[in-house]
Amino acid sequence: MQILDGKKTAATIVSEIRQEILQMKQGGLRVPHLAIVLVGYDGASETYVANKIKMCEQCGMKASLLHFADDASQDEIIAAIEQLNSNPDIDGFIVQLPLPAHIDEQKVIEAIDYRKDVDGFHPINVGRLYIGMPCFVCATPKGIMELLRRYNISTRGRKCVVLGRSNIVGKPVAAMLMQKEHGDATVTVLHSHSQRIAEECREAEILVTAIGQPHFIKADMIKEGAVVVDIGITRVPDTSLPKGYRLLGDVDFDNVAPKCSYITPVPGGVGPMTVCMLLLNTLDAAKHTYYQQ
Amino acid sequence: MQILDGKKTAATIVSEIRQEILQMKQGGLRVPHLAIVLVGYDGASETYVANKIKMCEQCGMKASLLHFADDASQDEIIAAIEQLNSNPDIDGFIVQLPLPAHIDEQKVIEAIDYRKDVDGFHPINVGRLYIGMPCFVCATPKGIMELLRRYNISTRGRKCVVLGRSNIVGKPVAAMLMQKEHGDATVTVLHSHSQRIAEECREAEILVTAIGQPHFIKADMIKEGAVVVDIGITRVPDTSLPKGYRLLGDVDFDNVAPKCSYITPVPGGVGPMTVCMLLLNTLDAAKHTYYQQ
Repeated sequence: MQILDGKKTAATIVSEIRQEILQMKQGGLRVPHLAIVLVGYDGASETYVANKIKMCEQCGMKASLLHFADDASQDEIIAAIEQLNSNPDIDGFIVQLPLPAHIDEQKVIEAIDYRKDVDGFHPINVGRLYIGMPCFVCATPKGIMELLRRYNISTRGRKCVVLGRSNIVGKPVAAMLMQKEHGDATVTVLHSHSQRIAEECREAEILVTAIGQPHFIKADMIKEGAVVVDIGITRVPDTSLPKGYRLLGDVDFDNVAPKCSYITPVPGGVGPMTVCMLLLNTLDAAKHTYYQQ
Repeated sequence: MQILDGKKTAATIVSEIRQEILQMKQGGLRVPHLAIVLVGYDGASETYVANKIKMCEQCGMKASLLHFADDASQDEIIAAIEQLNSNPDIDGFIVQLPLPAHIDEQKVIEAIDYRKDVDGFHPINVGRLYIGMPCFVCATPKGIMELLRRYNISTRGRKCVVLGRSNIVGKPVAAMLMQKEHGDATVTVLHSHSQRIAEECREAEILVTAIGQPHFIKADMIKEGAVVVDIGITRVPDTSLPKGYRLLGDVDFDNVAPKCSYITPVPGGVGPMTVCMLLLNTLDAAKHTYYQQ
């Protein structure tokens, strides 16, 4: 059994990005510039955003935060987005989700110029992903595929089971896995209405789970030698720890790991890859890898 | 075993659309108007287009054909599309595929205003479909879902296997089957790189096949009581027939049918539903069901 070390892999990628940005600078090019729109004072969101900005700095990338009060109107947010769309100094930007309830997330996402949509949530990027065209892919699924690639785990012809059908993990990772060339896997998507979940999981050569139910995946749901990728991160109260909680994945790691060929830990698996992929998307935005301006 | 009679179902839908258009007329509303762009003289394409126009007339819908010579340039086609985009008298339009090799199909599709994209091929419509938002869905997958619905075949919680991952059938039908509410199925997508295809098919409570390999699906690949939907239509030479060919589906119908609860015939299954769904999309375009103008 080998650990899919997301932390270490992410560090490698960060250093690659830093190197590339250094070369851009030396070549007289602008440094890539990411903007983040944050609305309100949700603690988790503020932490995530701070981490994204820190990582940008580590890479030598420029980062700008537009922080709005929690009573900012939808029109204000969309006006800010339109300014970012037309600002040639901004290569890509994201709106940190979730947004306060009075704002229509989908409307906000659709206001983003898809050519600067480095979160890959705009329907054009989702559609291009599903059709198999070059596009911005959202960070978590992209991070999963990149982690597999860096460990030389081929998906071609392999049976992959994806547990969860969210728009930000389950569906896009299924889309990537089933595409020609880079995916080429046989993909099954399971969710809350699926029957025979244990039996379906046991068929998986590669199991990707993203349901947010701590330790849902037990050892008897795993095929011997499977690759297990755990996206579930749930805070479970634990008074023995200073922060008062533990992070648990969807997988009962201690019992499942011995049966696996590869497995991601939680934390330290897909999580660290995610921010990395946002940086990679921003770099690709600056390089016009997917779209001409 | 019951036949999923696409011909009869399509006739019912055509008569419903005709009724609704009649009411629109009586209410003083414009009649929906579909335009079709056809490039070149491919016999099959000309037949399909003629059939679409005939069906429009049967429904009381207006249809216009823009027929270009096979040496029409990409710029000419895109200019025509831009005129259709801005013409308020056109509710929806399609570009008949395939296009001559000197024209970039994807560029042409992306030139279509997604609000008039009644073929549902524009990345915005594909993306919205995958996210689970209202949108134009391409005709064949929509026809499959409608056929199942009209026969009260629920997909919720059922194991569906889709054979084929094309952008016009396999992937969109998989997307519809896995969505919340209207789909809610457990979906597996198989394709040319899949292993254990027979075993996977045998798991299917609902099998949708769209690979264009005549009689690929044999009786021993079918679960007892399965619902089988056959999208494959291949012309196989047959000198005993006046037209010189027979249409064969992906399914070895005579041997498979006795094991099924429901099965589509070829021809007369999903085929007739397809044109119907184009008309339904055009009606929805005229009614602004999915998009405000």
